[in-house]
Amino acid sequence: PYQQTTYDFFIPSKTRVDLTEKMWASVQTMDGLPQLENYHSLFSLDINTRKNVTTFGFPSWLYKAKSRKNGKYYALRRIAGYRLSNERALHAVKDWKKIKNANIVTVHEAFTVRQFHDSSLIFAYDYHPLAKTLHQQHFPAQPPTTAARGPRAAPKNIDEPILWGYICQIANALKDIHSSNLAARCIDLTKIIITSQNRIRLSACSVLDVLQFEDQRPLQELQQEDLLSFGKVILALATNNPNIQPGNAKAAMEGLGTRYTVPFKNAVTWLCTPAAIAEDWTIKCFLSGISGHLAKALDNSFSAYDEQTSILAQELENGRAARLMMKLAVINDRPVRGLPSPNWSEAHERNLLKLFRDYVFHQVDAEGRPVLDIGHMLSCMNKLDAGTDERVLLTSLDNETVIVCTYKEVKQMLNRSFNELMRCSSSRDGNPE
Amino acid sequence: PYQQTTYDFFIPSKTRVDLTEKMWASVQTMDGLPQLENYHSLFSLDINTRKNVTTFGFPSWLYKAKSRKNGKYYALRRIAGYRLSNERALHAVKDWKKIKNANIVTVHEAFTVRQFHDSSLIFAYDYHPLAKTLHQQHFPAQPPTTAARGPRAAPKNIDEPILWGYICQIANALKDIHSSNLAARCIDLTKIIITSQNRIRLSACSVLDVLQFEDQRPLQELQQEDLLSFGKVILALATNNPNIQPGNAKAAMEGLGTRYTVPFKNAVTWLCTPAAIAEDWTIKCFLSGISGHLAKALDNSFSAYDEQTSILAQELENGRAARLMMKLAVINDRPVRGLPSPNWSEAHERNLLKLFRDYVFHQVDAEGRPVLDIGHMLSCMNKLDAGTDERVLLTSLDNETVIVCTYKEVKQMLNRSFNELMRCSSSRDGNPE
Ligand SMILES: Nc1ncnc2c1ncn2[C@@H]1O[C@H](COP(=O)(O)OP(=O)(O)OP(=O)(O)O)[C@@H](O)[C@H]1O
Ligand SMILES: Nc1ncnc2c1ncn2[C@@H]1O[C@H](COP(=O)(O)OP(=O)(O)OP(=O)(O)O)[C@@H](O)[C@H]1O
Ligand SMILES: [Mg+2]
Ligand SMILES: [Mg+2]
Repeated sequence: PYQQTTYDFFIPSKTRVDLTEKMWASVQTMDGLPQLENYHSLFSLDINTRKNVTTFGFPSWLYKAKSRKNGKYYALRRIAGYRLSNERALHAVKDWKKIKNANIVTVHEAFTVRQFHDSSLIFAYDYHPLAKTLHQQHFPAQPPTTAARGPRAAPKNIDEPILWGYICQIANALKDIHSSNLAARCIDLTKIIITSQNRIRLSACSVLDVLQFEDQRPLQELQQEDLLSFGKVILALATNNPNIQPGNAKAAMEGLGTRYTVPFKNAVTWLCTPAAIAEDWTIKCFLSGISGHLAKALDNSFSAYDEQTSILAQELENGRAARLMMKLAVINDRPVRGLPSPNWSEAHERNLLKLFRDYVFHQVDAEGRPVLDIGHMLSCMNKLDAGTDERVLLTSLDNETVIVCTYKEVKQMLNRSFNELMRCSSSRDGNPE
Repeated sequence: PYQQTTYDFFIPSKTRVDLTEKMWASVQTMDGLPQLENYHSLFSLDINTRKNVTTFGFPSWLYKAKSRKNGKYYALRRIAGYRLSNERALHAVKDWKKIKNANIVTVHEAFTVRQFHDSSLIFAYDYHPLAKTLHQQHFPAQPPTTAARGPRAAPKNIDEPILWGYICQIANALKDIHSSNLAARCIDLTKIIITSQNRIRLSACSVLDVLQFEDQRPLQELQQEDLLSFGKVILALATNNPNIQPGNAKAAMEGLGTRYTVPFKNAVTWLCTPAAIAEDWTIKCFLSGISGHLAKALDNSFSAYDEQTSILAQELENGRAARLMMKLAVINDRPVRGLPSPNWSEAHERNLLKLFRDYVFHQVDAEGRPVLDIGHMLSCMNKLDAGTDERVLLTSLDNETVIVCTYKEVKQMLNRSFNELMRCSSSRDGNPE
C-alpha cells in the first residue's frame, strides 16, 4: 500500500475531484440573505422550491452559514413562521447535542431570529458539502418532457448490498438515539442525507422535539414509530416507490418478489410489523438479527479506510515536494534587498542551489529541446527530502562550472540558506519544516 | 470538515509521521539474504531471535520482499526445514487466496525453495509496514535489569472498548473464514498483528492447512478450536497473562473481577466454554450476541474514515500548490536553449510571470527584510489555482514596471507559457494538470 509510481503523484481520481468539489461548495457565497447573530455569509441549500410542510408542519429552509465564533461552516435549518411560545422547548436540543454518531448529523443549537421579517426558529447542524437526500439520489425529478410523455421510467432496482449498508447505518443511528431515551422522528427519504459514497446520516434530529414540545407523546410510541418509518424508507427504496402508505405497504412487501433475498425481506417485514410484545420490537432486537450484515458493513468500512490511507500516503509526498519547492523558490534569484549580505545571492552556495534548480526544472535533451518530465522533478524532490548519498552532476549554462555533489549536501545548503534568510526576516514562524 | 487554516497545510500530525515511517520501513534494504525466484530484496522482519516452534511445529522466519512481477512488497513466511511430500498440499492455499477480509492478511501463494540451503516452504502475504504482534504490543519484553530485580511490572489493564474492538475484528475474520468452510488455526497473540491504530489482522492463515495436509481433522473440530483460541487470546489480554492454558482459564475468568462489565465477561466465558449443542456454539451465534458492539465498531470506523478524509482534503491543497510551483519553476528564468523563440524568456508574458514569482516568493517588508510567510505563498497558489478575479499588484524591482492583473490572467499566462514549452519539448506526456 505504500508504493508509489511517478504517475500516482497527481492522483487523477474520483477522490480528488470529489474532495475538490466539496471544497468549492463550502466556500460558495450568495447575496441578499440576512446576517444572523452568530452566523454570516448565508447560502441557500434548497434545491426544490416547493414549500413542503408535511415533515414539520411548517415550511423549512436550509442554509449554509459561517460561524462568527470559530469560522466553521454550519447548516442552518429555518422553520419559517414558527412562534416559540415556551423557551423551555429549546432545552430539548441539549440532549441531542451530546449525541455523536457517524450516521447522525450533529445538532449544535437552536434559537429564534427575526431577521427574515417573520418569526423563525433556527437549528444549527454540522455542514456536509454537496449532501443529497435519499429522495434526490434515488428518485431524481423527471425532466418535464419525459413526465408528460408517459409513465415513470422503468424502475432501477437498488442492489441489495447497498440497501443492507443503509439498513446497518440507520440501525446504528437509532441504537444511539433510542438508548439515549430519544426518538429520531425524522426517518424519511427527504431527511436522510448521503454525505459521501453510500454514507448516510439523519439530517433533521431534534426539530420535532422542539416544535411539538407542548404535546409530548410517550417515548415508546415514538421509538416504535421510528421502526415503522425505517421499514417504510427501505421498502420505498427496494420497490422504487417513494409513496409507501399504511394502505399499500403490504402489497409493496409482496412486490419485493425474487429480486431480494429472504433475510432481506424478513428484515423489512419485521420493521413494518408491530410485534405483540413491545420488548421484542426494539432496535436492539433488530441489531442482533442483522449481526452478520453489521460485520460485513464493518469490513467494508475498514477497507474504505485502508484505501483512503494509501491515497493519503501518496499525497504526503506532494506535501514534501511542495515544502522543498517553496524553499528553493524563496532562495533562487532572490533580489538583493534585505539579504543577509549584499552578495548573498551570488555566493557559492546560492549559485549551487541555482544550478540544482536548473538541473531539476530546466533540463533540455541532446537536441536542446525542453524536457518537461514530472517524474524527474519529483524524484529529485524525493531524493532531496531524503538527503541521499546519490551524486548529481551540476553544470552551468556556459559549461564553465561543473560540480558534483550529493543530494545530502544540496539539502544541507538549502536548509542553511533558508535559515539564514529566516534569521533576517520579519516573520520567524514560517519555516516549512 | 473542509476548512483549512494556514497552519493546517503542513500537517504536523501523528498521521504524517506514521505514514512516513511506514514508507521508510517499506523501502529498507539488507544484505546477505538470497534471491528467490519471483522475489528479491529480502529484508528480515523477525524481531525476536528465539526460534519458536510451538505455532507450526517448525521454526519460521519472516521477510519483506519485492515481487519481480509487479514491484509490490510482500511478507514471506518461511517454514524452515520442511520437506513437502505431497504437491497437492499447496492447493490448500487456493481457497485462502479468495478470502479478502479487512481483518485477515491476504494470502497470495505458497511454494518451496532451496535458496536457504535447506528445504523451506514459503507463504507470501500482503506486507503491512511496521506491523507488531498483539504479543509485542501488550506484553513487551522487560528490560533484563528490571526482570532480574523482581516480579513483572504491575499489570496495565487494557481498556474494555479496545478489547471489544479486537473482539469485533476477530469475529469478523472468523465469520468469513468459517463460512468459506475453512478454519483460521492461528488465533494466537503472536499471529495476530496490529497494522494501524487498534486495527488487527490474522497473519498466518493457511500455514497449518498445508503443513498438516496429510492428517486432516474434521472442520467442525477446527472451527470450534478457533472459538477456544479466540477466548484465550481475549482472556490473556484482559488478565495481562500471556500464558492461558486449559488448566488456568477458569481461574483467569474469575480473575476478571470488576474491571470489566458483565457482557464482556459473558462473551469471554461463552468463547471459552464448549456448548452441549454444536449448532449453538458457532461464530454466527457469537456475532448475534455482540451486535451492539459491532454497531459501535462500525460507528468508530466511520469516524476514523471521516477524519482521514478531512486530512486528505487538506493534503490535496499541497498537490495543487506543488503542481503550480513546478509549472512556474519550469518557466521562470529558463535559459534560452531550446525555447519556442530566442527571446521567449524575456517576452512580456514571461516577464509578468517572473514578477508574479517575485511577488509570491521574494516579498520584503517595509524595512526591506525578507518576508517568509508560508500563508502568503499558499494563498497565492490557491488563488492562482482557482483563477480568481482578485487583482494583484506586480512591481518590478526598480519600480519602473507596475502592472495590475487578476489571478485569472496570471493563470492563463502560466498555462499558455507552459503549453508552449510543452509543444517544443521532447516529452509530451508530462503536463501536470
Ligand atoms: N447538514 C447538511 N449539510 C449540508 N447539506 C444538507 C444538510 N442537511 C440537508 N442538506 C441538503 O439541503 C437540501 C435541503 O434539505 P431538506 O431537508 O430541506 O430537503 P428537501 O428535499 O428540501 O425536503 P423538504 O421538501 O422536506 O424541505 C438537500 O439537498 C439536502 O441534501
Ligand atoms: N504480513 C506482515 N507484514 C509485515 N509484518 C508482519 C506481517 N506478519 C507478521 N509481521 C511481523 O513480523 C514479525 C515476526 O512475525 P512472527 O509471526 O514470526 O512473530 P513472532 O513474534 O516472531 O512469533 P514466533 O515466535 O511464533 O515466530 C512480527 O513483528 C510481526 O508483527
Ligand atoms: Mg427543503
Ligand atoms: Mg517469528
